[in-house]
Amino acid sequence: MAKNPQSDLVQPNERVDDLQNGFYVIQNPEKFCFGMDAVLLSGFANIRKNETVLDMGTGTGIIPILLKSKGKGGHLTGLEIQEECADMARRSVRYNSLESDIDIICGDIKEAAATFGAASFDVVTSNPPYMIGQHGIQNPYMAKAIARHEILCTLEDVVSQAANVLKDRGRFFMVHRPFRLAEIFQVLMKYKLEPKRMQLVYPYVNKEPNMVLIEARKGCNSRISVEPPLIVYEKPGTYTKEILEIYEMI
Amino acid sequence: MAKNPQSDLVQPNERVDDLQNGFYVIQNPEKFCFGMDAVLLSGFANIRKNETVLDMGTGTGIIPILLKSKGKGGHLTGLEIQEECADMARRSVRYNSLESDIDIICGDIKEAAATFGAASFDVVTSNPPYMIGQHGIQNPYMAKAIARHEILCTLEDVVSQAANVLKDRGRFFMVHRPFRLAEIFQVLMKYKLEPKRMQLVYPYVNKEPNMVLIEARKGCNSRISVEPPLIVYEKPGTYTKEILEIYEMI
Repeated sequence: MAKNPQSDLVQPNERVDDLQNGFYVIQNPEKFCFGMDAVLLSGFANIRKNETVLDMGTGTGIIPILLKSKGKGGHLTGLEIQEECADMARRSVRYNSLESDIDIICGDIKEAAATFGAASFDVVTSNPPYMIGQHGIQNPYMAKAIARHEILCTLEDVVSQAANVLKDRGRFFMVHRPFRLAEIFQVLMKYKLEPKRMQLVYPYVNKEPNMVLIEARKGCNSRISVEPPLIVYEKPGTYTKEILEIYEMI
Repeated sequence: MAKNPQSDLVQPNERVDDLQNGFYVIQNPEKFCFGMDAVLLSGFANIRKNETVLDMGTGTGIIPILLKSKGKGGHLTGLEIQEECADMARRSVRYNSLESDIDIICGDIKEAAATFGAASFDVVTSNPPYMIGQHGIQNPYMAKAIARHEILCTLEDVVSQAANVLKDRGRFFMVHRPFRLAEIFQVLMKYKLEPKRMQLVYPYVNKEPNMVLIEARKGCNSRISVEPPLIVYEKPGTYTKEILEIYEMI
């Protein structure tokens, strides 16, 4: 029996996850697997079809792939520091036949401006590590720890480089944890990325939010619009209509 | 028939509003009447029984009166620049027999530190004017315009003076509009008032928030806790349980 023509793209210990929208992503459960954060960010980011996008810390390449699946963005670049991750992301891009739309570059966020040049993108997206040194328990698996903790780059690295590679009036979309909101705003404004839109993600209508989606714009006046609350669960095990829409399940 | 012993405190064009908790406030409908903002702020502010409180821009004195009705705070001071307003607030304090608990001072927020001295309060509260020069329609009645627009003081005046009159680790509670959230955080941090707690108030569960409640603390590290969403209406005309609780209606 003929081998699946794609199967040579998938290595042992890896699996192919069906995104339920005609697209797939290769993941290694021992390393970092994408979460709802990436899905919500790709839903939150309003990007026109012809805009260039840089995804900083792309991991499995999930954000560029999700953006493409939603018809968002023209040419997309995913920047990932871990070579193994970048390789897996490149294979996911090929698996989806998106080679002409998405480039995966192995490199350091802290050198993004040097790598790509100033004012070179319309949009930057990022689902960066959330945890600073002291916060949370560090994962013993290095690949997961690097994705979750600010080991190789800090919030300020991400924001300062994003500000540099963005064109004037370019937009930065980020998902992060609400407990760092004040610091996030401070760092964004320090680098002239003005917070323009925000949505808090609450697991339940009576619970504290556990994610925040932020859009900032380079060189804008100070005025932010805060979106309606994004509630994840109607009740345990049942997503709300808003979440099903973002997951394209309805 | 004997005159109501309190009625000499109420002037023509004024009315006495029953706060439904044993307390009353005198208001003049031609001037500024308190709104839900003040009620929600008094519910949001956690203040111990023995703490000293300054309410900046106290208007009718509604916030000190509501705080007292909830058993919050020891001695409270309301600062109000409009003499007529301050006089009305003073009469409300007497109407509630709270003269030993609440002082109403007629004076300028911009001179609060000079008036009261540095590090003189445990807590500062404020429901300041929301609108900057260009925003919104200015009310033709000067008393209302001063309460709503930054005519006599700006956000930065309120925050810088609050920071000055607060003791180390003192807390600042403010209600404001979400569209100014980024600026609010920036100004707070500029004056070393670290945003520590925030709650967004959404009129309905699927609408944008129209108020934000903020607690900041003088000289703290950067970490904010964001509360569950505060939803005002279950459906048109019907408050949610949370709002009824704050209004002490249940």
